[in-house]
Amino acid sequence: MTDFGQQDHFVGVMKGVIATIAPRARVIDITHETPPYQIAQARFTLAQSWPFFPPRTIHVVVVDPGVGSARRPILVEARDHRFVGPDNGVFSDLIALTSAKVRQITNARLFLPEVSATFHGRDIFAPVAAHLAAGLAASRVGPLIADALRLPSAAVLRSTERTWIGQVLAIDRFGNLITNLSLSELPDLTRRRFVLSVGPARISDFAPSYSAGAPGKPIVVAGSSGRLEIAMNQEAAAAHLRVACGDRVELALD
Amino acid sequence: MTDFGQQDHFVGVMKGVIATIAPRARVIDITHETPPYQIAQARFTLAQSWPFFPPRTIHVVVVDPGVGSARRPILVEARDHRFVGPDNGVFSDLIALTSAKVRQITNARLFLPEVSATFHGRDIFAPVAAHLAAGLAASRVGPLIADALRLPSAAVLRSTERTWIGQVLAIDRFGNLITNLSLSELPDLTRRRFVLSVGPARISDFAPSYSAGAPGKPIVVAGSSGRLEIAMNQEAAAAHLRVACGDRVELALD
Amino acid sequence: MTDFGQQDHFVGVMKGVIATIAPRARVIDITHETPPYQIAQARFTLAQSWPFFPPRTIHVVVVDPGVGSARRPILVEARDHRFVGPDNGVFSDLIALTSAKVRQITNARLFLPEVSATFHGRDIFAPVAAHLAAGLAASRVGPLIADALRLPSAAVLRSTERTWIGQVLAIDRFGNLITNLSLSELPDLTRRRFVLSVGPARISDFAPSYSAGAPGKPIVVAGSSGRLEIAMNQEAAAAHLRVACGDRVELALD
Repeated sequence: MTDFGQQDHFVGVMKGVIATIAPRARVIDITHETPPYQIAQARFTLAQSWPFFPPRTIHVVVVDPGVGSARRPILVEARDHRFVGPDNGVFSDLIALTSAKVRQITNARLFLPEVSATFHGRDIFAPVAAHLAAGLAASRVGPLIADALRLPSAAVLRSTERTWIGQVLAIDRFGNLITNLSLSELPDLTRRRFVLSVGPARISDFAPSYSAGAPGKPIVVAGSSGRLEIAMNQEAAAAHLRVACGDRVELALD
Repeated sequence: MTDFGQQDHFVGVMKGVIATIAPRARVIDITHETPPYQIAQARFTLAQSWPFFPPRTIHVVVVDPGVGSARRPILVEARDHRFVGPDNGVFSDLIALTSAKVRQITNARLFLPEVSATFHGRDIFAPVAAHLAAGLAASRVGPLIADALRLPSAAVLRSTERTWIGQVLAIDRFGNLITNLSLSELPDLTRRRFVLSVGPARISDFAPSYSAGAPGKPIVVAGSSGRLEIAMNQEAAAAHLRVACGDRVELALD
Repeated sequence: MTDFGQQDHFVGVMKGVIATIAPRARVIDITHETPPYQIAQARFTLAQSWPFFPPRTIHVVVVDPGVGSARRPILVEARDHRFVGPDNGVFSDLIALTSAKVRQITNARLFLPEVSATFHGRDIFAPVAAHLAAGLAASRVGPLIADALRLPSAAVLRSTERTWIGQVLAIDRFGNLITNLSLSELPDLTRRRFVLSVGPARISDFAPSYSAGAPGKPIVVAGSSGRLEIAMNQEAAAAHLRVACGDRVELALD
């Protein structure tokens, strides 16, 4: 996962480096269309992705506005998965997991011979991930550290027993609004009357699927991320409601 | 093939699910940039793609505006290829092939443990395809059905012996207009005088290649899909002529 | 690498053809978002990419405005890599390497049974590359030729001992301007006072990394391509300065 886009040589070159060091490693793209520098979005995408990959997967996440600065390259080991990337908070949720270990990547013999100031994906992260894929022990990468950056989660402010105030965490390709309200922390909305407010909309319909929505009418659905979503049937709710990431969402039980 | 785009985690997660179930399966992307919900376009892209893949390929096609509704997940077996996706007409051409078999996918033990209402690509289609890739017999997926949805083809109306009326079936990235007029059903246009009308253009030139076109002038070429195309030399005919998918095309012999 | 984009079936079909002929070949995408017909940009991307791939890699580069015309399909062998594509200058830098060999691809038995006039990626280049991947000797592809097209490089005009005049060679996804001034041919700018002029900007700051730049202020950095870059910290220099590919860059030492 990167914010490198798909027009330049960046992603292909990282795969060339990996193929050179670990010819049998198999590379799967999550996305390279993370908006430039958006660590929060990369963190959300990573949270949606990694649990569906096989144990021992090595996740390379390079959304790295601080490339070439003093920010450290790190390796996170969590739940039998490994994560390689810059220490800029993108791995906050993983570092918080019980028994997670974080190492600073310091073993320069693993890097490409020349390390540029602007493309650590090619020069550091791809080769380190490839060496791990080829069997290198994590301990060879560098020493354990305890002070890796942990950014807070997007806050849910539960104001009363009947009201939850949250925000739009992400907007997907279809214009669905993914909120930070977890379904597991809410009452069963199929059995309760409610009003969800977002932008100009006041929504009272909990729909079993996107296609159950009436044309032109926003609905609330149980999203595949385990969070409340606002959607429309074959229409982009984000554009229709003019709602953006970070916008406030309020759920009020009747 | 999906309409999931490449910015979200959707496609990567499907591949993670496949890698977990069928570690040796190899995944090839056709496109994930099908415009949202456009079943007709997915059907065209599929028709262009599947014959060029090896026997026993499993094609996963998820353009699925009805996800979570009563539309059925199906498996189509045709010409030693298998196709997995929703029963919404995208497989119409395959179902019509002699000796094609269609099964409703009902074996929930093949699905992910929790099936969401909004992401059957991850929860149903990817795992079923992966189990098939790992050797599962098609019969284990579910029972044969005879009523899978078959949508009609884009019609060609042959009005006279010298006139064919069709439409623009697809527009490719270069702005070439692919019509639904099959070359095999037309006379040899290199030896006949003709006028092809599309939008404001009246074209009489059949060119052997795109680059044979004069600058700024639309031409007719034999497209790689076996259909008549309207194109321009290093320019987008669709934008130049302001023609869209579905627009009428008329070919008149002299 | 192609200019086929990712919305159509073109790239997927090429991979299907390869998988049919060479089931064990592994395909890595460099980019398919080269702007249509832009041979110069493909040449730059190729130069950035190929040295990072393993020996014996077969690079397929199809940016081919002359498809179907008399331009020849060629195979270039250089430095233990092989390159397949049209003879339109995209391989100029490789052909110039010592001991490079160029063959015209003439062995039609390697092609798909029907060769279209408009999609040689599918019908010629993918199958030839796949046969090479499957072990075919290069000599079987066709005869050596000595007159493959070589286009000149983007010129650097060194006007005085203290002044270099070049141009913007490429603009990456972040809006960084990659110039054709090679760092290896310049004095060490970290130790010299200089003014770099590009568009409306006069830049005197050589920064160790993108993130060392002050907000809103263009900087000069050592790019990962070994060339001088103009960049901004988390902002697109190209848009900020309204600079395009080919625009003039002048570096003057103090």
